[in-house]
Amino acid sequence: MCQLLGMNANTPTDVCFSFAGLAQRASEHKDGFGIAFFEDRGLRYFVDHHSARISPVAELVRRYPIKSDNVIAHIRKATQGRVALENTHPFVRELWGRYWVFAHNGDLKHFQPRLHAAFRPVGDTDSERAFCWLMQEMAKAHASVPTVAELTHTLRELVPAIAAHGNFNLLLSNGQALWAHCSTALAWVERAHPFCAATLADDDISIDLAAATTPQDRVAVVATEPMTRDEAWARFAPGELRVFVDGRASAC
Amino acid sequence: MCQLLGMNANTPTDVCFSFAGLAQRASEHKDGFGIAFFEDRGLRYFVDHHSARISPVAELVRRYPIKSDNVIAHIRKATQGRVALENTHPFVRELWGRYWVFAHNGDLKHFQPRLHAAFRPVGDTDSERAFCWLMQEMAKAHASVPTVAELTHTLRELVPAIAAHGNFNLLLSNGQALWAHCSTALAWVERAHPFCAATLADDDISIDLAAATTPQDRVAVVATEPMTRDEAWARFAPGELRVFVDGRASAC
Repeated sequence: MCQLLGMNANTPTDVCFSFAGLAQRASEHKDGFGIAFFEDRGLRYFVDHHSARISPVAELVRRYPIKSDNVIAHIRKATQGRVALENTHPFVRELWGRYWVFAHNGDLKHFQPRLHAAFRPVGDTDSERAFCWLMQEMAKAHASVPTVAELTHTLRELVPAIAAHGNFNLLLSNGQALWAHCSTALAWVERAHPFCAATLADDDISIDLAAATTPQDRVAVVATEPMTRDEAWARFAPGELRVFVDGRASAC
Repeated sequence: MCQLLGMNANTPTDVCFSFAGLAQRASEHKDGFGIAFFEDRGLRYFVDHHSARISPVAELVRRYPIKSDNVIAHIRKATQGRVALENTHPFVRELWGRYWVFAHNGDLKHFQPRLHAAFRPVGDTDSERAFCWLMQEMAKAHASVPTVAELTHTLRELVPAIAAHGNFNLLLSNGQALWAHCSTALAWVERAHPFCAATLADDDISIDLAAATTPQDRVAVVATEPMTRDEAWARFAPGELRVFVDGRASAC
């Protein structure tokens, strides 16, 4: 199983702290890592087929405080598809003049959808196949970028068709919101004023969140397992799909 | 005007030397940079809206010897489109299960093609518009990845329609070949055994190319202006389109 990390915030925020925690988990999940940062409509995208523990690219990400309102990161333990750059999550496609970023944790069996439209996998993972099918069906359902509520509704219809084939823990973002679906393991936390200190679950690194934030800031973090040991993480229920906007779980 | 750098090789080769030269040109071209490296079908993609002279991402690229058989890099001086990540070249799209990377140097006037298919610009540059139109028309012309010769033929038909609107110096790659079209300024050099020493045109850095290569290696480098002062660079003629495969200019 791989490990996912997502961040959605109401103001551009860096993920150096959380990514340091994720990289600690890369001893077992050593088959590459990737991270995508939205900056408004633009995207920074770093992948490496080396482990996040030793990759010079991961070292840059840990040290360079890239501020973003939507981030998706993934460290990979290969189940389907060889260890290669084209099989490294997250995957990116453009639709309706927006970039879409997708990462998946799980394993899909016998998922060979008909891909007849404009989205084809470059690599050979079940995950990229699922992403291409999602994009194809989203493109059919809407003529242009839908509202967050509309797209959430569409995803609630589409995702179960994939999840029927196995574990489908997913993160998806277009820079406006972060969608997360849980089959087996996903947890989330909201950070807001008054910010406290937080300590990584996988390391002894602590951070005083108040020192790096203003009272107006809101940040939601989603991860396969809780990233910190002293915050109130909530676990997703199996089959649950949530969307995060402006740093909080949305009601839609 | 921006600056382009492309590399095509018959064996994965690093571009640290050439990128160091390109970064020297970033004092004038300060509105961002980007570089994409193919590794087989996979892609590493680095962009920053900071100048390549000061960007920590550029520093990583200069020091981390990423080996690739096809590279496209660009440093930007904004003419159309504001300074933002989504306007930073190169641009990437997927078509026929392959990534396509595009960078442009020049300025297109009144180029507002009808984009009715699956490729839409995310930013607001003339360059990304031209790329989306090229992808749209390529998708119409072929049902799956064409041969290099077939695609070269298609590009010879399509490119003049864009170049009629202004300067259209372009680099395009899908990881199998590097296509280059010149309106006003583009030069290229082939490196092959016996390799010699080379000195950057913009700095006093020299490299002994023989020390880092084998007699079988072949590398072609394409750039807006010759990158070195002691090699036999050839200049493209205005309107010329060339394709590089396995480190040499192809006859097609």
